[in-house]
Amino acid sequence: MERVAIIGASMTRFGQRDAWVRELLAEAGEAALSDAGIDGDDVEHLYVSNMASGEFEGQTGVPNALAHDLDALPAYTARIDQTSSSGGAGVYAAWQSVAAGASELTMLVGGEKMTHRTTAEATDVIASLTHPVEYKHGVTLPSFAGLTARLYLDTYDAPRESLGKVAVKNHRNGVDNPHAQFRKEVDLDTVLDSPMVADPLRLYDFCPITDGSAALVFCPESVAAEYVPEGEYAVISGIGGATDTHVVHERADPTTMGGVVDSSTIAYEMAGIGPDDVDVAELHDMFTILEFLQSEDLGFFEKGKGWKAVEEGVTDRDGELPINTSGGLKSKGHPLGASGVAQVYEIYQQLTGNAGPRQVEADIGLACNVGGFGNCVTTTIMEASQ
Amino acid sequence: MERVAIIGASMTRFGQRDAWVRELLAEAGEAALSDAGIDGDDVEHLYVSNMASGEFEGQTGVPNALAHDLDALPAYTARIDQTSSSGGAGVYAAWQSVAAGASELTMLVGGEKMTHRTTAEATDVIASLTHPVEYKHGVTLPSFAGLTARLYLDTYDAPRESLGKVAVKNHRNGVDNPHAQFRKEVDLDTVLDSPMVADPLRLYDFCPITDGSAALVFCPESVAAEYVPEGEYAVISGIGGATDTHVVHERADPTTMGGVVDSSTIAYEMAGIGPDDVDVAELHDMFTILEFLQSEDLGFFEKGKGWKAVEEGVTDRDGELPINTSGGLKSKGHPLGASGVAQVYEIYQQLTGNAGPRQVEADIGLACNVGGFGNCVTTTIMEASQ
Repeated sequence: MERVAIIGASMTRFGQRDAWVRELLAEAGEAALSDAGIDGDDVEHLYVSNMASGEFEGQTGVPNALAHDLDALPAYTARIDQTSSSGGAGVYAAWQSVAAGASELTMLVGGEKMTHRTTAEATDVIASLTHPVEYKHGVTLPSFAGLTARLYLDTYDAPRESLGKVAVKNHRNGVDNPHAQFRKEVDLDTVLDSPMVADPLRLYDFCPITDGSAALVFCPESVAAEYVPEGEYAVISGIGGATDTHVVHERADPTTMGGVVDSSTIAYEMAGIGPDDVDVAELHDMFTILEFLQSEDLGFFEKGKGWKAVEEGVTDRDGELPINTSGGLKSKGHPLGASGVAQVYEIYQQLTGNAGPRQVEADIGLACNVGGFGNCVTTTIMEASQ
Repeated sequence: MERVAIIGASMTRFGQRDAWVRELLAEAGEAALSDAGIDGDDVEHLYVSNMASGEFEGQTGVPNALAHDLDALPAYTARIDQTSSSGGAGVYAAWQSVAAGASELTMLVGGEKMTHRTTAEATDVIASLTHPVEYKHGVTLPSFAGLTARLYLDTYDAPRESLGKVAVKNHRNGVDNPHAQFRKEVDLDTVLDSPMVADPLRLYDFCPITDGSAALVFCPESVAAEYVPEGEYAVISGIGGATDTHVVHERADPTTMGGVVDSSTIAYEMAGIGPDDVDVAELHDMFTILEFLQSEDLGFFEKGKGWKAVEEGVTDRDGELPINTSGGLKSKGHPLGASGVAQVYEIYQQLTGNAGPRQVEADIGLACNVGGFGNCVTTTIMEASQ
């Protein structure tokens, strides 16, 4: 199997944007072409990660629109949807296209336009991914998060404050991310005093509704240096995808995300490394509790000890294993189809030394993108090229 | 690149079904597992081809639901959308997963549930794939078809009756397809006297709105005989995907489908064959005029001569190049995400000698799945295994 490199990347400003998803995709796509130093018509496969352009704005066929706008015709195009982990699934599809030898230059652009809808409407579109047996009881992803957070705190004797510290950390990181939706620090009291959403989780435990887009350019590792200098590309050394039960209440232990365990096991094996080898990670902190669960299920910390790592600063930017140097979904925002792509964008920036004030020392990075409430997960491991 | 075999296939009855898309997908998926003699948990990658489960029935995350229902956890899952050619794009994704070595056993299930919506509603969901500059003028795919049919008849001096003969032929084939929505012959007068829809096209020039699902199981050719006897599998010898302009009026010649030309060029080259080598083909006859265009753009007939081939019986079941032995979208129905999968199902049945009363002599078959009005196209070429 051919190893696959990433030779260019971009993301738009995340936040409330006065542009439709077609326009956001084109903005990120053009910037990534420029970053890789290629033209649209060099692209052989063009994937779009997007969950719900039809539901959000009555526009489908967005890969066709993007191919048109980037002058990438007659590239093969498709939309990859895996709900909130569409971006990670798109990385998987793009990787696969190059690994198979079906495409030499593949572009992935993820995006979503959401803020023109009310939070209730957007939450309901997202909740449509749940099983009807749960949906009809009014279950949404935030409600699952509240229930799980309560169970986690009780089971592992973790203080409520530890969840708040995830938000504080990620907001602090986001200040240095020019693309982030929120570039402001928040203190712990602000988080703990914010309005209750799903007990024990409060407003600042949740990511916002966001518009935005991010893009990546892939090619075989063997030719990457023909496009950009060594050091300016990164290599996907391991990638895995896995699915958990559709009905969340059927899971034996709701504090373990099976999809994270299974997808990372595949990715670690392909990369020939273990969790201790990872230098920097982007996790799917749609809710603060999810950062704990993933940091444990990826093997970074023992089960029930993820909260301590945050308390002790291990996951701070200057800690032993910086997590969410981008600001995470929490401060950067969560435009569904873009988020998994933007995670890989951040790891790419870190591994190529282009993360500016967010830069940490890292040779190996990991991105974990979670769809639904752990329903579908893609874990991507990347290495620096020098 | 590893060659990829198809070792199992199924399709549900197409038509008006009292079942949601989740249920239709599971019905086809279970039957295909059984046909291949494998269990759900043997499946490593599970793809779902579907355009619009969210818009049609407020249910997203259907690959997760299907993995759950087939006991295929923790298989990697994703939804592949390429509008009306989602099925062909799904075949491409499934092929790629095996060709890349990322999955040994991959399942693809395509499906759509549409008939609970009015024809106007369904047509509008489909029209959401058009460019806003055209959509706002009320353009739908049927209206493009009418304009193109008029241009074709005028340019190539073809009689109106030739279009009707596509419908007559495909309905005749559909009588022998137990899965088809319409199993009745229609005579030419019935077609020509049916209600006008988009001049010169009338009701019988259009495929219906349909519910249904179809499924395929893929593995490397090198291990196919471990699952099913030689002769009972078929091999994908060539596959290509291509995209045309999003704005249809920007095409130089609307009677040529660039995506069909480009995707088939790639597929023929990969297969090492030419159009004359094809023994049987399934084309995307969403509208009768499309069968003419594709039969020419695939190189079966000279430009402007496709209508003559139909008039002369060349594409009849007992003709030199049988086209749409399944009954085509015209009589079989067109559940968007299922159609491209069902095309490959039919070719698979023909190449393995399991097409029953529809059986023709064929060693090489081709399926051409068209999204939008030629916006996105996947062409798949298959060979018999003995």
